[in-house]
Amino acid sequence: MEQAPTANYVQRVELLDANEDDHGGVIVELDKPMNSEVFVPILRASIAHWKQQGKKGVWLKLPIELANLVEAIVKEGFWYHHAEPKYLMLVYWIPEGAHTLPVNATHQVGIGAFVLNENKEVLVVQEKSGIFRGTGVWKFPTGVVDEGEDICKAAVREVKEETGVDTEFIEVLAFRQTHQTFFGKSDLFFICMLKPLTFEISKQELEIEDAQWMKLEDYTAQPLIQKHEVWKCINNIFITKIQKQYSGFFPVLTSEAFSSKKNLLYLNKNDLNMR
Amino acid sequence: MEQAPTANYVQRVELLDANEDDHGGVIVELDKPMNSEVFVPILRASIAHWKQQGKKGVWLKLPIELANLVEAIVKEGFWYHHAEPKYLMLVYWIPEGAHTLPVNATHQVGIGAFVLNENKEVLVVQEKSGIFRGTGVWKFPTGVVDEGEDICKAAVREVKEETGVDTEFIEVLAFRQTHQTFFGKSDLFFICMLKPLTFEISKQELEIEDAQWMKLEDYTAQPLIQKHEVWKCINNIFITKIQKQYSGFFPVLTSEAFSSKKNLLYLNKNDLNMR
Repeated sequence: MEQAPTANYVQRVELLDANEDDHGGVIVELDKPMNSEVFVPILRASIAHWKQQGKKGVWLKLPIELANLVEAIVKEGFWYHHAEPKYLMLVYWIPEGAHTLPVNATHQVGIGAFVLNENKEVLVVQEKSGIFRGTGVWKFPTGVVDEGEDICKAAVREVKEETGVDTEFIEVLAFRQTHQTFFGKSDLFFICMLKPLTFEISKQELEIEDAQWMKLEDYTAQPLIQKHEVWKCINNIFITKIQKQYSGFFPVLTSEAFSSKKNLLYLNKNDLNMR
Repeated sequence: MEQAPTANYVQRVELLDANEDDHGGVIVELDKPMNSEVFVPILRASIAHWKQQGKKGVWLKLPIELANLVEAIVKEGFWYHHAEPKYLMLVYWIPEGAHTLPVNATHQVGIGAFVLNENKEVLVVQEKSGIFRGTGVWKFPTGVVDEGEDICKAAVREVKEETGVDTEFIEVLAFRQTHQTFFGKSDLFFICMLKPLTFEISKQELEIEDAQWMKLEDYTAQPLIQKHEVWKCINNIFITKIQKQYSGFFPVLTSEAFSSKKNLLYLNKNDLNMR
C-alpha cells in the first residue's frame, strides 16, 4: 500500500479584485457568473484582508445578471446603497461604530421654459397626462433634466421636443425645492427664460395635446395663474423680466479647482458687470 | 375498484395586494417572508390579472429582509429601479414597446456658506478629509443637503455643525451644476450668504481640523482663490455682494397649485420689489 507523498502545501486564498476609493474604502465590481457557495468564502476572506489593511467602506457593484448573489451578500451584513436598471450597489462598513458613507442622490431636477416672442406672445402647451390633463390650462413647457444633462440644455431640448421651436437659453429666473415628490425624494424645479429662434410650431404627438403662441394677457388671465400663489408669483417674475427690471442667474463656464473639467456656474451676471 | 369522486373544483388563485398609481400602473409592497417557489406562481398570476386590466407599470418594493426573492423576480423580467438601505424597488412593464417609467433621482445637492461678520471677517475652516486636506487652504463651510431638507436650512445646519456659529440665511448667490461626481450622478452646489448671529467658534472634532474668522483680504489672497477660475469668480460675487451691488435668490414660501403644501421659491426679491 502506497502512501500519499507529504508536502508543504501553500494555501492560496482567492481574493476579490478591488480598487481603492478616496475615503479609505474599496470598490469591487463583480462581473463573472458565480454561485453563492463559491462566492461567500471569497467575500469573507476579502473582508478579513481589507480589515487587516485598515479599510473602512466596501462598495460592491453587482450586475443584474448576478442577482443570484444578492441574498448571500445581504446575509454577510451588506445593505443596499443604490440601484440603477442594470446593477445593484451594496455596501458594508468594516470599522466599529456608525458608517460615514455618503447618501445616494436625493433630488430629481426639472425645468419650466418661459419663451416669449417679439409680439409678447408666450409659447404654451396643453398636456395629455399629468395634473393639468383635461383642465384646459395652457402652461409653459416643462420637463425632467436627464442624467448628466445641463439645466440650460434640458430647457432648450424640452421646448424643441414639445413644440418644435428652437430657442436660445437666457437665464434661470427662479427655482423651487419640493419634498416627498417621488418615493421620498425631493425635486428642484428651475424656471428658465429662453429666446425663440424659430416660430413655427410642430407639437409632439405622444405627450402634447396642443401648443400655441398665446398673448401674454390671455396667459396671465387664466384662473390657475390668478388663483394660485406660486403661479401668480412666477408670473410676476415674467412680467418684471419683460420690463427689463429683473436679473436671474446666467450660466458661465468655469474650470474646476483641481482639474481641467469645466462646469457651469449660474450667477447674476448683470450685477457682476455693474461693477 | 373504486373511482375517485368527480367534482367541480373552483380553483382559487392568490394574487398580490396592489395599489394603483396615477399613471395606469400598480404598486406592490411585499412584507411577509416567503420562498420563491411559493412567490413566483402568485407573481405570474398577478401580472396576468393586471395585463387583463390594461395596467402598464408594475412597481415591486422589496424589503432587504426578502433579499431571497430578488433572483426569482429578476428572472420574471423585472429590473432594478432604485434602492435605499432597507429596500430594493423593482419594476416591470406590461405593454408592448418601450416603457415610460420615470427615472430615479439624478442629483446630489450641496451647499457652501459665506458667513461674514461686521469686521469684514469671513468664517473659514480647514477640513480633515476631502480634496483640501493638508493643503493649508482655508475654505468656507460646505456640506450635503439631507434628504427632505431645505437648502436654506442645510446651510444654517452645516455652519452650526462645523463651527458652532448660529446664522440667519440671506440668499443663494449662485449655483453650480457638475456631472459624473458620484456613480454617474450629478451635483448641484448652492453658494449661500448667511448672517452670523453668534461669533464664538466651537469646531466639530470629527471633520474639522481648524476654524476661524479670517480677514477677507487674507481669505482672498490665498493662492487657491487667485489661481482657479471658479474660486476667483465666486470670490468676485462675494466682494460685489459686500458692496451691496449683487442680488441673489431669496427663499419665499408659496403654496402649491393643487394642494395646501407650501414650498420655497428662490427668486430675485430685490428686483421684484423695485417695481
